[in-house]
Amino acid sequence: MKKFIFLFLFFGSLSVTAQIDRVEPPFWWSDMNYSEVQLMFYGKNIAEYEVSVPKEMIISNIRKTENPNYLFVTVQTEGLPAGSYDLRFSKKGKKSFTHSYELKQREAGSELREGFDSSDVIYLIMPDRFANGDPSNDSHPELQEKANRKEPGGRHGGDIEGIIQNLDYLEDLGVTAIWSTPLLEDDDPSYSYHTYAQSDVYRIDPRYGTNEDYRRLASEMHRRDMKLIMDYVTNHWGGEHWMMDDLPTYDWIHQFPGYKNSNYRMTTQFDPHRSGIDTKLNEDGWFVSTMPDLNQSNPLVLNYLTQNAIWWIEFANLDGFRVDTYSYNDKEGIAKWTKAIMEEYPNFNIVGEVWMHDQAQISYWQKDSPVGAIQSYNTGLPSVMDFTLHDAIMAMFNEDEMHWDRGMVRAYDNFANDFLYADTDNLLVFAGNHDTNRINEEFDGDLKKYKMAMALILTTRGTPQLYYGDEIGMRGDKPAKGDGDIRRDFPGGWEADEQSAFTEAGRTQQQKEYHQFTKKLLNFRKDKEVLHTGKLLQYIPENNVYVYFRYNTEDRVMVVINNSSENQILDLSRFAEGLAGATSGRNVINDSQMQLQDKLEIEEKSSLVIDLN
Amino acid sequence: MKKFIFLFLFFGSLSVTAQIDRVEPPFWWSDMNYSEVQLMFYGKNIAEYEVSVPKEMIISNIRKTENPNYLFVTVQTEGLPAGSYDLRFSKKGKKSFTHSYELKQREAGSELREGFDSSDVIYLIMPDRFANGDPSNDSHPELQEKANRKEPGGRHGGDIEGIIQNLDYLEDLGVTAIWSTPLLEDDDPSYSYHTYAQSDVYRIDPRYGTNEDYRRLASEMHRRDMKLIMDYVTNHWGGEHWMMDDLPTYDWIHQFPGYKNSNYRMTTQFDPHRSGIDTKLNEDGWFVSTMPDLNQSNPLVLNYLTQNAIWWIEFANLDGFRVDTYSYNDKEGIAKWTKAIMEEYPNFNIVGEVWMHDQAQISYWQKDSPVGAIQSYNTGLPSVMDFTLHDAIMAMFNEDEMHWDRGMVRAYDNFANDFLYADTDNLLVFAGNHDTNRINEEFDGDLKKYKMAMALILTTRGTPQLYYGDEIGMRGDKPAKGDGDIRRDFPGGWEADEQSAFTEAGRTQQQKEYHQFTKKLLNFRKDKEVLHTGKLLQYIPENNVYVYFRYNTEDRVMVVINNSSENQILDLSRFAEGLAGATSGRNVINDSQMQLQDKLEIEEKSSLVIDLN
Repeated sequence: MKKFIFLFLFFGSLSVTAQIDRVEPPFWWSDMNYSEVQLMFYGKNIAEYEVSVPKEMIISNIRKTENPNYLFVTVQTEGLPAGSYDLRFSKKGKKSFTHSYELKQREAGSELREGFDSSDVIYLIMPDRFANGDPSNDSHPELQEKANRKEPGGRHGGDIEGIIQNLDYLEDLGVTAIWSTPLLEDDDPSYSYHTYAQSDVYRIDPRYGTNEDYRRLASEMHRRDMKLIMDYVTNHWGGEHWMMDDLPTYDWIHQFPGYKNSNYRMTTQFDPHRSGIDTKLNEDGWFVSTMPDLNQSNPLVLNYLTQNAIWWIEFANLDGFRVDTYSYNDKEGIAKWTKAIMEEYPNFNIVGEVWMHDQAQISYWQKDSPVGAIQSYNTGLPSVMDFTLHDAIMAMFNEDEMHWDRGMVRAYDNFANDFLYADTDNLLVFAGNHDTNRINEEFDGDLKKYKMAMALILTTRGTPQLYYGDEIGMRGDKPAKGDGDIRRDFPGGWEADEQSAFTEAGRTQQQKEYHQFTKKLLNFRKDKEVLHTGKLLQYIPENNVYVYFRYNTEDRVMVVINNSSENQILDLSRFAEGLAGATSGRNVINDSQMQLQDKLEIEEKSSLVIDLN
Repeated sequence: MKKFIFLFLFFGSLSVTAQIDRVEPPFWWSDMNYSEVQLMFYGKNIAEYEVSVPKEMIISNIRKTENPNYLFVTVQTEGLPAGSYDLRFSKKGKKSFTHSYELKQREAGSELREGFDSSDVIYLIMPDRFANGDPSNDSHPELQEKANRKEPGGRHGGDIEGIIQNLDYLEDLGVTAIWSTPLLEDDDPSYSYHTYAQSDVYRIDPRYGTNEDYRRLASEMHRRDMKLIMDYVTNHWGGEHWMMDDLPTYDWIHQFPGYKNSNYRMTTQFDPHRSGIDTKLNEDGWFVSTMPDLNQSNPLVLNYLTQNAIWWIEFANLDGFRVDTYSYNDKEGIAKWTKAIMEEYPNFNIVGEVWMHDQAQISYWQKDSPVGAIQSYNTGLPSVMDFTLHDAIMAMFNEDEMHWDRGMVRAYDNFANDFLYADTDNLLVFAGNHDTNRINEEFDGDLKKYKMAMALILTTRGTPQLYYGDEIGMRGDKPAKGDGDIRRDFPGGWEADEQSAFTEAGRTQQQKEYHQFTKKLLNFRKDKEVLHTGKLLQYIPENNVYVYFRYNTEDRVMVVINNSSENQILDLSRFAEGLAGATSGRNVINDSQMQLQDKLEIEEKSSLVIDLN
């Protein structure tokens, strides 16, 4: 008899594992605002089962799709204490079984976590290319692509451990936040190092580490008062995503007769004259052929993405999202997704990638945008990227002479349109990222130009973002050599590296010069509130010299950027409004005191950041 | 005794003429909404006199300035019948005198006159360069600059009579409105032919004709159902303006210690970070050194300009204004000026020159602009110029190959931002004007490019504007040869001309080809309501081919512009939404019927305008 019971239990247990392959989210938390959770059960013919829950839990909705292997069970968790809750699956003629679902205890203060803001400087890392902290995980038996550091488009082995090991370097540099490109599992057979083609969005790619490693990264950063920003991809998954072989619904992704690529014309999102077919292809066409385009207009998909995003914030203690290809998503869906997250975490921050070249078009996507309001559209997205400033930076520092619309006037003109934005402090300002040509390549290794560009992005309004390696003068030529070249390994991140730029001693003389300037300015910015939230006052550039001030009631900083190839002498009387009576100030780069009476001389191709306090 | 009385009256009369040199406006009308008229009296020490009016007239305000030669008397004319009203000037110890002020009878329907709109095609004329209808007025004894047709920057003798004599030509061409550059007196010693430096704004320059000739022009045009648009200059007068020697107030014009030019940075009008000094120089600096900048923030100046503008509408029976350098004016002042005119004539139309290169920046100045609303600014200006489309036209037809942002996509991108405008039908669309390089010069005399550009501006949304001579292929190279070269005389406008393009027989073969195409399209447009007010539906250009539709509930026109250097075959299934079931249409250029099933072939560098009705 005992033997019989044993066998029975054994088979029963087998039956359970066979029946439910996945439950997502794998757990949730008590005391969430997002308390009505849609649990996705995946398992062979799972939809044929009835589900019942403990009496204190309420099922508010059960959704079945055309695929019987999925069952969506929405449970109401409001008021439920942390603990395990048994969901019972039963079917006539079959053995019933249970799944124990866990509601974890929320960390104190989770809801009111403060996202990154304009007091931060964000450092963008491609983790595969930054530092290989754990060489043992460079390849993984379950995942197709193996490490090959010789390939510019291959996996090089960088990982979370590598980032953690170099947090001191970043803290010393003056960085206060990290945006790392995606870390979730990407099982593409090639080019998986960029990790935007994800195959399991509840799992850190084991070649980067574990989910716990990611939590540890956040924890290590918080210990240093640094913030972690996750790169979230709502628009698409990878072709190797586990669902692709067995979609919950046909319209989970956008499917066409034959393959359709996106036309990338994001203007169809607001063009009053757009055709239906162009609009559909922009939103629904695939970003690339290896990335199935998700259908956020399907509530099941949207819920899945929303819960997954909240899950990561709560699980890993995140301080922000960067959202990939924000303006390619279903327009209404992405706004709902964004708002749901911001409702859960009202002080969180999310920056969307809206890669457009017109301020009105970029502003359109920011929360409470007056431009979006023209079409009654409001994403709820707190932050967008100042791509027009990036356009200006790429061009103007190579223009020695100023014309009507060339040279430093490009920066001036960019800021003149700031009235189009709802919140200019919450614009990401940057001289480059993982998709644009390396700024030091554009500048042909000219340190002077780098310094001017950094002086600008670190003192103008907004939240500066640096791209890993720019601070040591790294180059890379995307137009000539492709993406791999702008994503080279950070020197010193691999044990075999001959030279390490992570340490003062290891840096070359040239690297030192880049690094020292960057560090000096970053650390000045760190506690200089007027550079975080002060107002901006700008003057029309003359002779390719751009002068502006940041100011508030207590403090004032003057910035002069001389982009001409000649020393310039400025008549300071023109800047009386900005100087507000100041007659001297401190040059924050060399810590010298400067007289600010009558005239100011500035060397060719240089910048001055002057603390007037 | 009789002799004594005679002498007394004689001296009395002498005294009157000596006392009042000018009264402006010289007369007004009864039954105006603008019934509170500020009369400006100018005469030696006129401010020392008391003024009294007949008892049915009320003086609501008397303003004296620091200059005793001016007296501003605001009279209330509401309810007063047309007639003459004696204003009596008296001063202790001086002989009193009267000025008889006339209120004329208003023409019936004056208030509700309909301004130009998108059913019109506007033809821009520089009157000195169009046709010399009256050689006797080429020079004038009172005015400094004499005719000299040999000088590109000199006066050539064109005049109002010349326009009148060629109205038949314009009517036949299909033009429905004329915007002529200014005709008011400009006594500058040189370059007065452009006539933006005016010396008396109540007088047509006698080298163009008389005030009555201008009325006659309007009348001759109205007889042909054509509309007359006056080029009004609020921002500045000429240095030779009669007031400049004896300003009513020091701040009538903007004065500086030393001369200050405008910095032309119109963005200071809305830049949230602008400095006071830059803002002031943009608005208050002089446009050029010969044009004193008017201070529209002075209510006396603003009133003067407003009344002068209304006076011309009423006097000459105008159908619209084009306002020069609109965005250089005092921002609040110009809005008040505009609104006052539109209050007097609610169906009038005014187009402002806002020469900027960003749709948001241009939209800012249009009435009820959602962009202006961001800063609670509303000019009341019904129409602005689509300068960004002009930028596109200047570039794209010289780009055979399309890239992401080159070729026909420039037009597409321009219209994608139309949501930024309050009223796109009331945008002026144009391929050139008197300040831009000749379009046929940009096209290097390529008739094919001209045809594509015309097909675009005559069928897209908005109100098309042609520049005189473009329709016969006139060229002119501004960058190389200056303004005079884009303002050459229209051939046939002068008796001595060897050839006349005003007549079919007189036109060269090349001129005929330009003219025929233009005429054909203009006349098709004339009665084609769907091209005036229909909606626009556009498709993303492919292979440098741009396809769009204009449609309303009754009618539909398809336009195809193939800007590539190869014949193209279009798969029509892509355009199903635009075709809306149509399977054939009429090619309006050659009047042939076209099949629109499956495929459409179009020749390289050509356009098709297809009437689908």
